[in-house]
Amino acid sequence: MHGYADNKQDHVRRLRRIEGQIRGLQRMVEEDKYCIDILTQVSASNRALQSFALSLLEEHMAHCVAEATVKGGAEAEAKIKEASDAIARLVRS
Amino acid sequence: MHGYADNKQDHVRRLRRIEGQIRGLQRMVEEDKYCIDILTQVSASNRALQSFALSLLEEHMAHCVAEATVKGGAEAEAKIKEASDAIARLVRS
Amino acid sequence: MHGYADNKQDHVRRLRRIEGQIRGLQRMVEEDKYCIDILTQVSASNRALQSFALSLLEEHMAHCVAEATVKGGAEAEAKIKEASDAIARLVRS
Amino acid sequence: MHGYADNKQDHVRRLRRIEGQIRGLQRMVEEDKYCIDILTQVSASNRALQSFALSLLEEHMAHCVAEATVKGGAEAEAKIKEASDAIARLVRS
Repeated sequence: MHGYADNKQDHVRRLRRIEGQIRGLQRMVEEDKYCIDILTQVSASNRALQSFALSLLEEHMAHCVAEATVKGGAEAEAKIKEASDAIARLVRS
Repeated sequence: MHGYADNKQDHVRRLRRIEGQIRGLQRMVEEDKYCIDILTQVSASNRALQSFALSLLEEHMAHCVAEATVKGGAEAEAKIKEASDAIARLVRS
Repeated sequence: MHGYADNKQDHVRRLRRIEGQIRGLQRMVEEDKYCIDILTQVSASNRALQSFALSLLEEHMAHCVAEATVKGGAEAEAKIKEASDAIARLVRS
Repeated sequence: MHGYADNKQDHVRRLRRIEGQIRGLQRMVEEDKYCIDILTQVSASNRALQSFALSLLEEHMAHCVAEATVKGGAEAEAKIKEASDAIARLVRS
């Protein structure tokens, strides 16, 4: 069981909305919408994806990382390193 | 006709791949995949969306903004301001 | 003469404030301030640097890129490519 | 004692280098350097600030958050929420 198990349906719904936004972007390109309006929609989709990632990460820290920390030792260190690397990828993407 | 008209099919194909990535994220959540692997996939989708936005923006500057600039005056200024605002939204999202 | 020449003193003042923020960060570390407060200050400095970059970029597009566009040809294309690459670096940093 | 106490001198040195980069930016503006070269330097400074923030955050999670997690309860939850909020500010800045 993962940290996000309790909110699984929320996450799937959120990702379906993002999928809808991406299909909306395809329609905008196909219908020759104005570039700037397309870019505005891309920024909104990026923010929605980031919000999804941030809530998943918070749940991961509150469950998987917290459990490993209570056990301590090498596994705790490895989980913290792994979470830090994921945060770095999000910050830099 | 917009700046991106020549590459319309490329853009639609690219967005379809991103749509596929978002559906892949839904599957990962539904199949209880490991949080960190989901986050890695989110970072990849974010970068793909950014690359799409950056190529659209380059075409917009090479066509719409460039044409307005040749005409000059208030319209040129407005187009540059509008592009700058879109860039600021991308940098901050 | 560059696009930012008219606002040179504004830009230098803005960068001096950012330099002050970075020195403030050093003091916070030396005085053992709380990590989260330091991170909040880093986010503020990052945003200030981005705002500086975005205003410089807008002036660059309104002057250097616009002038090259009016002349047209290979130089116009090169300037637009160069500006697009700088925007990509900002978006990805 | 904070998580970053062991690496305090490293952090201060790193921030001094970033301060030097910001002073370098001031000189570039004063000496009318080319906009694009200034923007490249801004991207480098932003990345350096982000790397500082990410290493501080990793130490914070390995110490402050980990200690609170071992104690458990409301304080553990509060520390995880606080770290998540700081991460969200970094991702969005």
